Amino acid sequence: MQRKRNLYLKTIPVEEAREKYFSAIADLITVKHETIKVTESLDRITGSAIYAKYSSPLYNASAMDGIAVRAADTAYASETSPVVLKETDYVVVDTGDPIHPPFDAVIMAEDIVETEDGVRIIASAHPWQHIRPIGEDIVAGEMILPGNHKIRAIDIGVLLSAGILEIEAVKRPEVAIFPTGTEIIEPEEEPEDGSIIESNSRMFENMVTVAGGIGHRFAPIADDYAKIRGAVAQAAGRYDMVIINAGSSAGTEDYTVHVLRELGEVIVHGVSVKPGKPVILAVVAGKPVIGLPGYPVSAYIGFENFVTPLIQMMARRPERLAETVQAHISRRLVSSLKHKEYVRVKVGKVGDKFVAAPLARGAGAAMSLVRADGFCIIEQNSEGIEAGDVAEIALYRSRREIENTVVVIGSHDLILDVIADIMPNAYKDMFVSSTHVGSMGGLMALRRGEAHIAPIHLLDEESGEYNISYLKKMFREPMALIKGVHRIQGIMVKKDNPLRIEGLADLRSGMEIAGKEADCGDSASGAAAGDAGMSAGNAGTASDVRVDAKEMAGGAERADAGNAGANVGGVRAAGKKIDGKAAAGEYAEGKRAGRMGTAGGNAVPVRYVNRQRGAGTRVLFDYKLKQAGIDPAEINGYEREMATHMAVAAAVAGDGADAGMGVLSAAKAMGLDFIEIAPEEYDFAIPAKFLELPHIKAFLQILQSAEFHDRLAQLGGYDAGRSGEVILL
Amino acid sequence: MQRKRNLYLKTIPVEEAREKYFSAIADLITVKHETIKVTESLDRITGSAIYAKYSSPLYNASAMDGIAVRAADTAYASETSPVVLKETDYVVVDTGDPIHPPFDAVIMAEDIVETEDGVRIIASAHPWQHIRPIGEDIVAGEMILPGNHKIRAIDIGVLLSAGILEIEAVKRPEVAIFPTGTEIIEPEEEPEDGSIIESNSRMFENMVTVAGGIGHRFAPIADDYAKIRGAVAQAAGRYDMVIINAGSSAGTEDYTVHVLRELGEVIVHGVSVKPGKPVILAVVAGKPVIGLPGYPVSAYIGFENFVTPLIQMMARRPERLAETVQAHISRRLVSSLKHKEYVRVKVGKVGDKFVAAPLARGAGAAMSLVRADGFCIIEQNSEGIEAGDVAEIALYRSRREIENTVVVIGSHDLILDVIADIMPNAYKDMFVSSTHVGSMGGLMALRRGEAHIAPIHLLDEESGEYNISYLKKMFREPMALIKGVHRIQGIMVKKDNPLRIEGLADLRSGMEIAGKEADCGDSASGAAAGDAGMSAGNAGTASDVRVDAKEMAGGAERADAGNAGANVGGVRAAGKKIDGKAAAGEYAEGKRAGRMGTAGGNAVPVRYVNRQRGAGTRVLFDYKLKQAGIDPAEINGYEREMATHMAVAAAVAGDGADAGMGVLSAAKAMGLDFIEIAPEEYDFAIPAKFLELPHIKAFLQILQSAEFHDRLAQLGGYDAGRSGEVILL
Repeated sequence: MQRKRNLYLKTIPVEEAREKYFSAIADLITVKHETIKVTESLDRITGSAIYAKYSSPLYNASAMDGIAVRAADTAYASETSPVVLKETDYVVVDTGDPIHPPFDAVIMAEDIVETEDGVRIIASAHPWQHIRPIGEDIVAGEMILPGNHKIRAIDIGVLLSAGILEIEAVKRPEVAIFPTGTEIIEPEEEPEDGSIIESNSRMFENMVTVAGGIGHRFAPIADDYAKIRGAVAQAAGRYDMVIINAGSSAGTEDYTVHVLRELGEVIVHGVSVKPGKPVILAVVAGKPVIGLPGYPVSAYIGFENFVTPLIQMMARRPERLAETVQAHISRRLVSSLKHKEYVRVKVGKVGDKFVAAPLARGAGAAMSLVRADGFCIIEQNSEGIEAGDVAEIALYRSRREIENTVVVIGSHDLILDVIADIMPNAYKDMFVSSTHVGSMGGLMALRRGEAHIAPIHLLDEESGEYNISYLKKMFREPMALIKGVHRIQGIMVKKDNPLRIEGLADLRSGMEIAGKEADCGDSASGAAAGDAGMSAGNAGTASDVRVDAKEMAGGAERADAGNAGANVGGVRAAGKKIDGKAAAGEYAEGKRAGRMGTAGGNAVPVRYVNRQRGAGTRVLFDYKLKQAGIDPAEINGYEREMATHMAVAAAVAGDGADAGMGVLSAAKAMGLDFIEIAPEEYDFAIPAKFLELPHIKAFLQILQSAEFHDRLAQLGGYDAGRSGEVILL
Repeated sequence: MQRKRNLYLKTIPVEEAREKYFSAIADLITVKHETIKVTESLDRITGSAIYAKYSSPLYNASAMDGIAVRAADTAYASETSPVVLKETDYVVVDTGDPIHPPFDAVIMAEDIVETEDGVRIIASAHPWQHIRPIGEDIVAGEMILPGNHKIRAIDIGVLLSAGILEIEAVKRPEVAIFPTGTEIIEPEEEPEDGSIIESNSRMFENMVTVAGGIGHRFAPIADDYAKIRGAVAQAAGRYDMVIINAGSSAGTEDYTVHVLRELGEVIVHGVSVKPGKPVILAVVAGKPVIGLPGYPVSAYIGFENFVTPLIQMMARRPERLAETVQAHISRRLVSSLKHKEYVRVKVGKVGDKFVAAPLARGAGAAMSLVRADGFCIIEQNSEGIEAGDVAEIALYRSRREIENTVVVIGSHDLILDVIADIMPNAYKDMFVSSTHVGSMGGLMALRRGEAHIAPIHLLDEESGEYNISYLKKMFREPMALIKGVHRIQGIMVKKDNPLRIEGLADLRSGMEIAGKEADCGDSASGAAAGDAGMSAGNAGTASDVRVDAKEMAGGAERADAGNAGANVGGVRAAGKKIDGKAAAGEYAEGKRAGRMGTAGGNAVPVRYVNRQRGAGTRVLFDYKLKQAGIDPAEINGYEREMATHMAVAAAVAGDGADAGMGVLSAAKAMGLDFIEIAPEEYDFAIPAKFLELPHIKAFLQILQSAEFHDRLAQLGGYDAGRSGEVILL
């Protein structure tokens, strides 16, 4: 703990930070102009008013195909006394042809009759009829576009018509972006333990584009004071703005604030906002330099709060204001008085009300931004929002898109992603949005009128039947069950099942590994350890072999697998048939045997990861534990909850957990082994009144489509024989 | 009339045309994919669902700066019985650092005390506290983005985090654009008589971009059947779509439809829509080929109706639906049952209602599209909309922009453009929109609650006072007059005043030029004729000199100025002092003298252009005629109405008119001579209740600003001494 940490100055509210910073740099912000070609000016902002060089039309022009005449010559023409014009008295014109004196009117081709003597007219032409006077559309010298105007395709056409080839446009501000951090790697690099793939700078680069600037993203700089200082000093001289990413928090290697204090002035350090507190707003060499936090959501919010408005000012672009809706918040949101909070939400329209379901609130939850339909701001002076309260949501998607979206809340399965993927492709401008709160959570959402559909897989322990009894018990209104899929639930374990888990009984914490250092590592390190055991004597038991997996190909540095191997003992290992599947199995078997043994030391049981309460998988797990006579207290990790099958699978694939319950498709997606526990029915509960909505109909059609069935076959583990069947209850 | 004209097949409604064409080509439309870099994917559409390659975080990661510990070691820590951890029992971690077994919890730096023995803990850590589990945000194998998703900056960040470097994106359809026409010139070329600057193709090119495609614009092709056929045949083989511009109407040189019938199949020719009837929808070599009309508004509407949806289909982009408002239509709109009509409108919010003022309805009125805030569709089965009726307006601008816009309806002056230019520059997101209907029209609009401000210059003939008496007479509600400018009205005549017009009396049609062929041409030809006259003898009168201006530098082909010169006679020319200002004056003098004479032949009087009824300038003109005892019937062109000073100026600068009344600044802008008639007061009428609106306050501030006064000085002819002064009535 020797390293120095930055302590925040007192954080200040966003509005105050903005006010303070923007007024400090107000005189430094300059709007630059440049001359650009009109043909390349789409979406650019005019630097000043633009005046026509030519009129359009450039001359008095025929507005019709026909003949140009002297109106006076036709003055008394009528059906009874037609006028015949000789060839010298008219000229044939097409639309757009110039009309010159002495001609001052055009008669449409349809209204004349050609005769041997000439052209016969049966109605008088009034002066200037069917002639577009010079400058009718654009008058030379008149203002075509004002300054500060965003150029559209039609403007380009008119500018060229008016003889304008080049215009003064507002120059797009150029923004230097420096990712920093010793642990970050480029996306192309192979990640190692502790690597963080640098992606914020690419997000910023594109956010700069969207705001109206040009982003220049530089290669990552290590956490090195001199290097960071050098880069910032040079960039501040050359660019209109500088962004430094990460290094803005109070961590031990966060040099940014020191660098900026040395090079210029730090106006604000720390903003009372969540996520996004660690922001540095500084000025170096007359240029705004902004330090943004490393967590992607914090980075995004910090950028939107401070960088976007600055670029818009320099680029003379109007502030983009999101469309808003008033929506019912589906879940209580508690927030601290210490900060303003941006909560990402899914938004749907169910019946005649908009409903917003909060997404993950963590600063690292970048996917919450990807999935969000909008966000809800909890002001600093508010302690939160109660479930059911109405709050204003700023939308990321269009209101219309949201109105055409099937709102699915309930149990998670990968087939929801598949349906969401197929929907807009097969049905124009229709979408599926799903939020994962487990089966019971989904039914509660249906009851509150917050969803159209709740995917559920709820076993009725008494009847052994799935789903239907729950709908009958919980709803008074007419309901329907749309049949979904049969799927298989089981225990997901690491690849090749190193701990040889065969059923629920193996999850009990009585089943311990002796030796507190014992660690299976991830499957790679297990395999590496196994390899080591093999090379150490090609024996059935890997006793007394200490392996440093770091030196092995596996690459998992800390797998201290040897310790485990050293504790091998117990009868079961000996009695186990050793298959030829690589010594990794042997090693694991050794570990398992260790667990079975009675050696002393700190016991490290199988590390289980559970699903959240209300999840059908949790219900099933509890049911199966009960059947097997296992007390949940015996499960190490029973309290550790994950929200989706995939999150459980990821935990098991990593080095923090050994087993978790989930569906086969999730295990397959993560390359895990799978111990089948029970088949189950995953269906869709829906109030009958929604069945006639067009997007619900589309949803039903997808369930019966060939494409859906093909995709399920690829995922594996599903039986979709009854998919899309509707049972009215 | 020997040339053959295409006759339309019966035109069909837009929806029917679209249905017929799109179903004919449904099987031909293919959505192509291509692999692109994620870093270059902003705004692209995903071709298929994208699944994560890596989890994020990639490992169990510390969520805080602090120390990683074994939770079990801290189980009984409390303030009274702290636990001290030795150096081997913890590891210092920064946010983002990996946490490996045996450690399974993180304690924040703030919560520990360093002692000589080790680190002291005074609270237990629960397992997995402050640890972001592997895959917390993104789980390897999970779907990050569905297909058909438009990629945003945040998506790019997440894709890279998930190890995705390249994605399958929908290929942007490539559209070949061929301008055709013998008369069209490139914008860089110097226009000659009859030239049309080709700009539609550039508009299309950018409309293709906006719709999601890539436009390839080719050089103009002359009206040559073989060339057009060759270009279309080749392009249909190479591009996803072909657009041919102009040549789609029934004009004499319109080969397009013949070419398309020869090369493929014409599905639709002619659509019942206004503007935009002459559309050809065809298929050549399996590719959609669309012929669009030449008039810019027709071209635009044709493109939006048929090309945009096709590109969106191929590019898999959602249909862009404009925001709509219900607005009161300010003027009666009569429309034929023969077609659906798109009427461009200015939209404003006055009080609590939206008001839409129709703009020029002509197909050639490209500026009506530039100026429009939206459009109102009059369905084919409707005969129009009554003034005051509410209709739906599809907006081009955002509703918010419209709500922040000062609606100005009334008399036109160039200073309105100046104010509109200054406004958004000086006041963020505030705008001025002005519609020109004359002073009385403006006051009527105020009375109907359709405008905030009416610019007026109305002389009270009895009192000789301007404006105030009209407000007192016409309004019951409290009104105010915002002082505008003093400006000068006069007669605008061609440069160097070739007809030597000195006052209103010279406009009388009794004052004729003998010889119906007599023509002054534009000022350039006048000058050329003058030069010729000079070289023909350097004499004071240019008698008997025939000049073909086409051979002269002036470039105005048809100026048959010699004829005029040939008619010189009469006493006044002789008596006139000849100034040294070039023989052009002499020539003109000769013409004027001719007018004064009594020669026989068809009389061609001075060609006047008037302003529309209700315009203050018209009121002034009538007043001055009355004062001078001139009957309006004596003014040739009294019935020819133009809506703005600049339109009058343009007419006078062209070869269709000799004189018109207007303000000095308009004459200056068009390089015209100006005969002062009267000074006048151009002010702003406003209901007093609007004075406190923020955008009205901004308007007032601009009138008093230095920038406004500087700009007026540049325009010339204004006295802005009292600008911005408010007189409450």
